[in-house]
Amino acid sequence: MAGILESVESCLERHLPPEELSEVKRILYGGEARKLHLPAAALSAAQERDFELQGYGFDAEPEQLRRPRIVRVGLIQNKIPLPTDTAVSVQVAALHRRIAEIVEVAAQSGVNIVCFQEAWTMPFAFCTREKLPWTEFAESAEDGPTTKFCQELAKKYSMVVISPILERDETHGGTLWNTAVVISGSGAVLGKSRKNHIPRIGDFNESTYYMEGNTGHPVFQTQFGTIAVNICYGRHHPLNWLMFSMNGAEIIFNPSATVGQLSYVAAPDGSRTPGLSRVRDGLLVVEMDLNLCRQVSDKWNFKMTGRYEMYADKLTEAVQPCFIPNIIKERASH
Amino acid sequence: MAGILESVESCLERHLPPEELSEVKRILYGGEARKLHLPAAALSAAQERDFELQGYGFDAEPEQLRRPRIVRVGLIQNKIPLPTDTAVSVQVAALHRRIAEIVEVAAQSGVNIVCFQEAWTMPFAFCTREKLPWTEFAESAEDGPTTKFCQELAKKYSMVVISPILERDETHGGTLWNTAVVISGSGAVLGKSRKNHIPRIGDFNESTYYMEGNTGHPVFQTQFGTIAVNICYGRHHPLNWLMFSMNGAEIIFNPSATVGQLSYVAAPDGSRTPGLSRVRDGLLVVEMDLNLCRQVSDKWNFKMTGRYEMYADKLTEAVQPCFIPNIIKERASH
Repeated sequence: MAGILESVESCLERHLPPEELSEVKRILYGGEARKLHLPAAALSAAQERDFELQGYGFDAEPEQLRRPRIVRVGLIQNKIPLPTDTAVSVQVAALHRRIAEIVEVAAQSGVNIVCFQEAWTMPFAFCTREKLPWTEFAESAEDGPTTKFCQELAKKYSMVVISPILERDETHGGTLWNTAVVISGSGAVLGKSRKNHIPRIGDFNESTYYMEGNTGHPVFQTQFGTIAVNICYGRHHPLNWLMFSMNGAEIIFNPSATVGQLSYVAAPDGSRTPGLSRVRDGLLVVEMDLNLCRQVSDKWNFKMTGRYEMYADKLTEAVQPCFIPNIIKERASH
Repeated sequence: MAGILESVESCLERHLPPEELSEVKRILYGGEARKLHLPAAALSAAQERDFELQGYGFDAEPEQLRRPRIVRVGLIQNKIPLPTDTAVSVQVAALHRRIAEIVEVAAQSGVNIVCFQEAWTMPFAFCTREKLPWTEFAESAEDGPTTKFCQELAKKYSMVVISPILERDETHGGTLWNTAVVISGSGAVLGKSRKNHIPRIGDFNESTYYMEGNTGHPVFQTQFGTIAVNICYGRHHPLNWLMFSMNGAEIIFNPSATVGQLSYVAAPDGSRTPGLSRVRDGLLVVEMDLNLCRQVSDKWNFKMTGRYEMYADKLTEAVQPCFIPNIIKERASH
């Protein structure tokens, strides 16, 4: 599309001299992620199917007592393939097909854990203020058609699948939730994580569609590492990230549906991969050694210097209706 | 210096075509801060005295019931002027002189609140593991020579001064603290804020020099707005920022002494000014309308969607020695 920047990275790469480019990248993105060599079959399949395929890797230091714990993560971003006035079931089926062909390439690329977009089976409709037909896209997290579809994918490729959907919870009065379903590489539904924080920002007021999540900060132990899901706007609340980490998450996914899509992966040392194109469908494959989590934690000592006891007390005070802020004023000297 | 990037911004400005430059800046820095028109006398004084002088402005929407609350903030970065083996009192005097000549230009530029570097009266010595002569740079926050010097500056220019020093606390056994002294525009010592979190990172292990601060998260009500000081490494702890904000801070300063110096000002809407040069002394002047704080808060609703009661409970649980993380495992199916 004319006038739209493909991505910041491609723009920098096109215009900056090589030496300055690498210094600017270091400042903006931390250490440069290494390019991952992906199989030719995967690259040509991505081209045929018209989506971007990028691969990067983060490394960790070798350790004596732990073997490297290498995992490949895949993030998928995609447009809706059909107009939003197509029948609901036809739109969902088309999205299933589109995702299936991208996940096949993820499997060819050695992906162990794949994560789709927020509410991936539907158009982004929460800004419309309309209920029908959008709420008809909601499904059971445990045995809806999309979860069954993802279980098939997971089993077929021995891949952990994170499937963020609009959830219809029939056992609690048919309530709606913004939920990520986590499916094990064996095809079993491991559990679900509901979006904890809801944007109430202009047209992004999603609070008439679903409520603040009540699943807390679950962490899922998979065969590839412990993972958690912080959905979209929850990224703006540092305490949300903190509690997932306190529960032991080594990878925290942040599926979104937002303005100017972007997907990237950040390592615990602050380095990050470039983002995917801002305008095309894409699959980002990132290989990482999870040993890096503890290595960086031991280096920066954030958990140990965090003084969480103090903040537990301070927050407990601050949420009281009678809270008096600690404001220091100049004493009148006359 | 050859091979050192002056700043990311100047590099981008030199190489990117204008249209792409403004889009890249929008993505990296948010809305572009407007350039501030500074008096010619200030600009030429800065040039004579060999430091960079930059000015930017953030605007807010006009409101019906509140007048704009315009304040100009000045951030100073500086090298040490003398070798580190010079006599302590001579080094301090030289730093006082250097700061005085920069603050004079700040006054010419209309600055209302000025903030110096972390432990600005001494070389960055905490990485040396040596005690003498470095601990001799410590002073009383209430009536040390540096505080008296800053009180003179404050009174002379009716300027609030934030003076981060190594503090010697004689009333508590001569203990040392990493402390920001806040001096009102009248010249009165409003109070002090001690660094809450201490880096214990390789050579940046400062924990043998001073202890975790015990002043909590004080906010100082000045004639120009409510301000707080989050010293250096405390910036990595989101709860530290949060509690200053909970106590009502409208501007939170973050004086640092770190690798690759940088000073910049971020507005509540996420836009930020470019940084100063990475290699020269400098004064960054930023004008802002503090009404923007509440405007952005009302737009994004972070405080209202923050669910702090939940996190107060969760943190209280998480700091217990018997805490059991919420980890979900696959049930054995055979």
